[in-house]
Amino acid sequence: MTHFASVQLSHASRLINHGPTVLVTTAFGGKRNVMAAAWSMPVEFTPPRIAVVIDKKTYTKELIAASGSFGICLPCATAIDMTHAVGSISGRDIDKFERYRIVAAKGPVLGVPVIETGCAAWLECRLISEPHTEEAYDTCFAEVVAAAADTRVFSKGHWSFRKDNLDLQTIHHLGGGNFVCGSEARLAKPLD
Amino acid sequence: MTHFASVQLSHASRLINHGPTVLVTTAFGGKRNVMAAAWSMPVEFTPPRIAVVIDKKTYTKELIAASGSFGICLPCATAIDMTHAVGSISGRDIDKFERYRIVAAKGPVLGVPVIETGCAAWLECRLISEPHTEEAYDTCFAEVVAAAADTRVFSKGHWSFRKDNLDLQTIHHLGGGNFVCGSEARLAKPLD
Repeated sequence: MTHFASVQLSHASRLINHGPTVLVTTAFGGKRNVMAAAWSMPVEFTPPRIAVVIDKKTYTKELIAASGSFGICLPCATAIDMTHAVGSISGRDIDKFERYRIVAAKGPVLGVPVIETGCAAWLECRLISEPHTEEAYDTCFAEVVAAAADTRVFSKGHWSFRKDNLDLQTIHHLGGGNFVCGSEARLAKPLD
Repeated sequence: MTHFASVQLSHASRLINHGPTVLVTTAFGGKRNVMAAAWSMPVEFTPPRIAVVIDKKTYTKELIAASGSFGICLPCATAIDMTHAVGSISGRDIDKFERYRIVAAKGPVLGVPVIETGCAAWLECRLISEPHTEEAYDTCFAEVVAAAADTRVFSKGHWSFRKDNLDLQTIHHLGGGNFVCGSEARLAKPLD
């Protein structure tokens, strides 16, 4: 049973507004891959567009160049070990989904692998080809064409991070396998 | 008394590795400004380079274009009200530093405003002019030329997020003035 529901495209950028660590998923020609990426951000709400840094030497970048698409999946606190694991080895010679028993479905629009078990949300992304920024900064721009999130932690277009759903919340990589996990969110108050 | 100490440039990108909300500071021709930005990321460790999304219509973008530089300051949990406040109004007609009693010094290399009180770290950044990405994605690339952090929460090149320094940790904007604040970090374990 899944707790995932579609997220309106106008709310999709909000899924990564707070800088979570993400998994980048790819598939092309019978091969598929998943890697961890700490460096991503939205660049626009409407249309929903994002940027993500993917080293040009990676297998993931090869599959993105070939397919023109990728998935962004947001691992939650229960998945920090898996996240670190898929960020530590290349998928050029092994299928990391099999290796780490990661369950993936096909995204509804582009067919990229999307992960729900152990994740709080996913976004299907179509690459916007920008050869210069990909070469100079390893930075890939993309448009989000579909998104979904776990309704226990994201609903009505907003994250709801509470004490009772800490394990379902997204994570943030500090470096060296050290992750910031769940926290109860606080609302800013107006200043005088 | 300050708890800040210089951060080696090779560790500077790690300061924003985990996707914190930042304050972008600017100064040019006797004017200065500070705004909040949720969307930033490193793009390279060495040389330390970052990307940040700054709407081309903002006063901040005008000052960056004029000066070729900006500061990135990382507000901590005690500063969420100030962060939301400086993200909600324009500095075109008022000095937000005065308005919100924000204490700023001049960065050592470029002279951009750097904020230590209420912040966990700062980075002085020199814009790398990229007219196309600035126009198409509001995305500014920059090289970090100096950085410093509060040694109570960042030392020996690493963030140290613990139960005893929650208020000094960086923050993450979920949207609508709702922020994820401090959390004790967890270390990933190797998977079988």
